[in-house]
Amino acid sequence: MKVLTFSTHGERKVGILSDDNQSVLPIDFPTDVAASGLLSLIKANENGLPETFAPIPLADVQIEAPIPLPHRNIFCVGKNYHEHAHEFANSGFDSSATAGAVPKSPIIFSKLPQTVIATGEDVIINNAVSTAIDYEAELAVIIGKGGQGITAENAFDHVWGYSIINDVTARDLQGKYSQWLIGKSQDTFCPMGPWAVSKDEIDVTNTGIRCFVNDELRQDSNTGLLIFDIPTIISTISEGITLMPGDIIATGTPAGVGIGFTPPKYLKGGDVVRVEIDGIGSLENKFQEIN
Amino acid sequence: MKVLTFSTHGERKVGILSDDNQSVLPIDFPTDVAASGLLSLIKANENGLPETFAPIPLADVQIEAPIPLPHRNIFCVGKNYHEHAHEFANSGFDSSATAGAVPKSPIIFSKLPQTVIATGEDVIINNAVSTAIDYEAELAVIIGKGGQGITAENAFDHVWGYSIINDVTARDLQGKYSQWLIGKSQDTFCPMGPWAVSKDEIDVTNTGIRCFVNDELRQDSNTGLLIFDIPTIISTISEGITLMPGDIIATGTPAGVGIGFTPPKYLKGGDVVRVEIDGIGSLENKFQEIN
Repeated sequence: MKVLTFSTHGERKVGILSDDNQSVLPIDFPTDVAASGLLSLIKANENGLPETFAPIPLADVQIEAPIPLPHRNIFCVGKNYHEHAHEFANSGFDSSATAGAVPKSPIIFSKLPQTVIATGEDVIINNAVSTAIDYEAELAVIIGKGGQGITAENAFDHVWGYSIINDVTARDLQGKYSQWLIGKSQDTFCPMGPWAVSKDEIDVTNTGIRCFVNDELRQDSNTGLLIFDIPTIISTISEGITLMPGDIIATGTPAGVGIGFTPPKYLKGGDVVRVEIDGIGSLENKFQEIN
Repeated sequence: MKVLTFSTHGERKVGILSDDNQSVLPIDFPTDVAASGLLSLIKANENGLPETFAPIPLADVQIEAPIPLPHRNIFCVGKNYHEHAHEFANSGFDSSATAGAVPKSPIIFSKLPQTVIATGEDVIINNAVSTAIDYEAELAVIIGKGGQGITAENAFDHVWGYSIINDVTARDLQGKYSQWLIGKSQDTFCPMGPWAVSKDEIDVTNTGIRCFVNDELRQDSNTGLLIFDIPTIISTISEGITLMPGDIIATGTPAGVGIGFTPPKYLKGGDVVRVEIDGIGSLENKFQEIN
């Protein structure tokens, strides 16, 4: 099942995408329930889905991020693909102080909820603040069932499904402030979407993930290559932190980010970044310079 | 003005504390508005306060945290007093990788909203997860007026007031995971309160801050000794991140935390930690061991 959060006639709705991705079947949620996007469906799932209305062509709706305003910061994993861990360690911006490039334990940081934008929306490059903006293609895990002390064996029971995140990063701020919150949480720095898929749709141990900048392939990997896999990430976070339905975990990015090149290939105004994950779809955003 | 978030007969309310701290004047907010605690008053302030009801003795209410569930993670500043920066750098748990003990730029990380508990509530020491639990007495800034690109000169215009936070930390997890989110965000790790005071009540450039463990004075400093002062912190965060009314910023802790001792003095079940800030009040929580 592919689930789309969208707006039509100024009202947010949640719907099921058709198999050909050309239309959406809106679910009959009250307006205040649908406001939370996909989360309304995650919460409703226990009692079965409400009925759906007549399909609307996708071209006639405004696509929104699956969860347009997460209820708390998005969890993110750093340096979670081997080759990327090395390219980042060599970049000079790595303030994570792990012994060696490859971390022994998952590196968990966060992005503010208000950084989330939808596919098709512009990411703002604020030149007065940062001149080293980079892309990071990532598989996002969406938690369906909360819990504390979740074991790796049971972790997938707590997953609702997946989406795509571009973990946009200001490399200069990531290095300058040591902890990564500021460099990762600049306004508009979390494109997410275009929609979410339920966990039965893809095998995350073997799914292609790619990133293109202006149609040039920059990242080309497979989510099976994560250093810390999804069960490990979920059991690590939930060891003493209660995970909640609707929590989002960005699982880390493979090699090929801008700082991996010499000289670095930072993003500039007009650049278009497209992240593709097989079985999910394609998340595309233009970058716009101000100041 | 001291503002108390509390519950009585199972309903959350917001009220003004009497000068002698012995009673509270409930403000006439609708139930769904009062649910956000102090934030309801911050938002209402623009139009003047609604009327208040008859005072209730403080002894008859259940004190809640000023903002019981922040709308996003709490911003926190690390290593923001000179002597603490040195004791932390010497502790072996410092994964912040700044050159030298004293940071050149503010270190900003976050705590999950759901970590917040009130004065009088227990902090859980989960022995299965961490055996190195520490206290951190901190002045918390509460944002009243949002904004992006706030200058240091205008920063106090955006402050509503202050409260106290105990930035409870699992030192072993703080070191192990490199980024600090997990070590700082274990369930119950953010005692906040007992209430909030509007900014006119105290001079934060010269206010005493102390922490006692079982009545033993451990931290004894002054908020005037911050390395990065409140205007600098606000201008740093808001440079490219839009601050919002109700945002909370914990400004860092002075020297005297448990890891500053040899051997370290970690907290154990039954310990009572009391944080005092002159002009605000006293935040007291017992620590309870499980597992």
